[in-house]
Amino acid sequence: MGPGPSDVHPRILEALGRPTIGHLDPDFVAMMDEIKTLLKYAFQTDNELTLPVSAPGSAGMEACFVNLLEPGDKAVVCVNGVFGNRMVENVTRCGATAVRVDQEWGKPVDPDAVSAALEANPDAKVLAFVHAETSTGARSDAETLCNLAQRHGCLSIVDTVTSLGGIPLYVDRWKADAVYSGTQKCLSCTPGLSPVTFSDAAVAAIKARKHPVQSWFLDMNLILGYWGEGAKRAYHHTAPINALYALHESLVMLQEEGLENAWQRHATMHRALAAGLQSMGIEFVVAEAARLPQLNSVYIPEGIDDAQVRQYLLSKHNLEIGAGLGDFAGKVWRIGLMGYSARRENIELLIRALSDAMREQGRSVDTDAALSAVSAALAP
Amino acid sequence: MGPGPSDVHPRILEALGRPTIGHLDPDFVAMMDEIKTLLKYAFQTDNELTLPVSAPGSAGMEACFVNLLEPGDKAVVCVNGVFGNRMVENVTRCGATAVRVDQEWGKPVDPDAVSAALEANPDAKVLAFVHAETSTGARSDAETLCNLAQRHGCLSIVDTVTSLGGIPLYVDRWKADAVYSGTQKCLSCTPGLSPVTFSDAAVAAIKARKHPVQSWFLDMNLILGYWGEGAKRAYHHTAPINALYALHESLVMLQEEGLENAWQRHATMHRALAAGLQSMGIEFVVAEAARLPQLNSVYIPEGIDDAQVRQYLLSKHNLEIGAGLGDFAGKVWRIGLMGYSARRENIELLIRALSDAMREQGRSVDTDAALSAVSAALAP
Repeated sequence: MGPGPSDVHPRILEALGRPTIGHLDPDFVAMMDEIKTLLKYAFQTDNELTLPVSAPGSAGMEACFVNLLEPGDKAVVCVNGVFGNRMVENVTRCGATAVRVDQEWGKPVDPDAVSAALEANPDAKVLAFVHAETSTGARSDAETLCNLAQRHGCLSIVDTVTSLGGIPLYVDRWKADAVYSGTQKCLSCTPGLSPVTFSDAAVAAIKARKHPVQSWFLDMNLILGYWGEGAKRAYHHTAPINALYALHESLVMLQEEGLENAWQRHATMHRALAAGLQSMGIEFVVAEAARLPQLNSVYIPEGIDDAQVRQYLLSKHNLEIGAGLGDFAGKVWRIGLMGYSARRENIELLIRALSDAMREQGRSVDTDAALSAVSAALAP
Repeated sequence: MGPGPSDVHPRILEALGRPTIGHLDPDFVAMMDEIKTLLKYAFQTDNELTLPVSAPGSAGMEACFVNLLEPGDKAVVCVNGVFGNRMVENVTRCGATAVRVDQEWGKPVDPDAVSAALEANPDAKVLAFVHAETSTGARSDAETLCNLAQRHGCLSIVDTVTSLGGIPLYVDRWKADAVYSGTQKCLSCTPGLSPVTFSDAAVAAIKARKHPVQSWFLDMNLILGYWGEGAKRAYHHTAPINALYALHESLVMLQEEGLENAWQRHATMHRALAAGLQSMGIEFVVAEAARLPQLNSVYIPEGIDDAQVRQYLLSKHNLEIGAGLGDFAGKVWRIGLMGYSARRENIELLIRALSDAMREQGRSVDTDAALSAVSAALAP
């Protein structure tokens, strides 16, 4: 129940361990086509260029930046947590200039501040932001931000690592241009792959580049030769066959559940967890309207030892929760309710185990009251 | 029995499917330390900076080039197959200049030509070459080439994707500086990771850079924060936990067998396969002295249809062999004997299945004679 990797469903682990076949085997190529179709559903897009990058989410982030930006370009980057800062790093390593729009950690990106930055930088090519900040638990208004990008003639780059499969995400409806995610959050798959999708406008920008993409491994022009529809599959790199079996299974499970049902489940489980934690006197970092159901950042209660609690949970209850990152280190816990982790039994385990850990530190906790609050929140 | 991914041992598939734990979990961190130790054994090195990059071999290649080269640098690159060409692409995308030393496909790199190129380019910073060319089956003399690099004050970048675990490779003894490999060849692990190792000289060059590494994801300065010895493990990217379980298991198996025994097994199985194929009138592309035991490139016999044979083997015998790449397309088959694939039963299956496929095309083949030749080669 950390900030990811989430619990991986046994069906997905079983798929992962299937015998490895060749990356040009016709059966494997047919599965690649299914993955693309299933990813389009998950992203709610018809984008042809929708596929998993063969590396973790950080590489998916880099794929978006190195394909869209060239030396001398300018990008407006919203920073309200760790991953916005990482985006700035990506921009500068492309030889481009980043215009930062900073926001206090724990708050969503401020559309007015973004609008002002875009007004002040009419030469910006890209607006980049994080939909669901894993370091803080804040959800930004992706639709409004994508619209702002459109109005100012910018391409949008959207980090959906923690949002995909967990909260509403409509790539086409919102007209997002370059979107990357991860497999190890709300898809409940193993870590190591980064689903990405690029709009027609983004593809046109890639084709109009003056300089080659600085990364050979992440050059979408080359990757398309292997993942492209209908075309003869040209060898680019050896695909991570087994990881793709697992991603396929996780996307089949998402389709079986239904995307809206998955979003609903995350929302419901979050309300139950929040009721339980608040009954224990634990407060959320993020205001209710901007709270991510799948990533619950809460303040560590006064006088409670952060590391001791996390160590106790792990050793006594086999339960992981996340530490605070950056500015939040030592002040905040991050409790994940992602994918297969977003279940009633996990919430009850967390409440019991955390009560136990706090009692170890001399705090009196009414576990039964907290569990009743969870039950009440889940009552039909 | 293609050019990789090779057959994955059931023990490794079992390890792959184990429950996913957190990438900062103390048990996982302990396993990371074991992986580093086991990789040092496999590479025969004491290099501290020895770890698996969280992406396939192509990303390992890119990691070596983007960390060692800066804009304006010069690299001498040996090209005797597909992967030498890819190295040239990597050099130019770093903003550096590549001096090519071309060699006919199927032949090893010519040390005299390399020596001349290094003489003519005293400002070269790097000498890059492929130890075991997967596209042709040729083995180059890595020790001699690394010595040449040393004598000319160059850092060596060595592709050992297909050699690691299959033929002698001594990173420290040969003084190789930046070496990358893959998991899906002679380690018999699933594809998706790239073990790398960097010498002290390579690390010093990385630390002395004037420009930041152009890739955030592959920046060794940052990756070391997560993989570094003793240090507090700083989050860089989410490690591909399950893939690392599998790599760990494959390296444990290599240690159990013993590196020299693994090399010997590949050599023995290659001699047996060669005896069988030659008894069928099938000829090798590479001269005997430079032949890779694990990657057998053979000419497609006159009048035999390439695609039909490969299709027949796959559909009737569940057996994959590789097509020719680039200049060798349609002319050559590549038969892998890598890791778990390098077994007597696989060789006999290949001989029977290939005889069968050739008979389908009206060719008379004495399968029993070929199998006897295999047996004779394996007799003590």
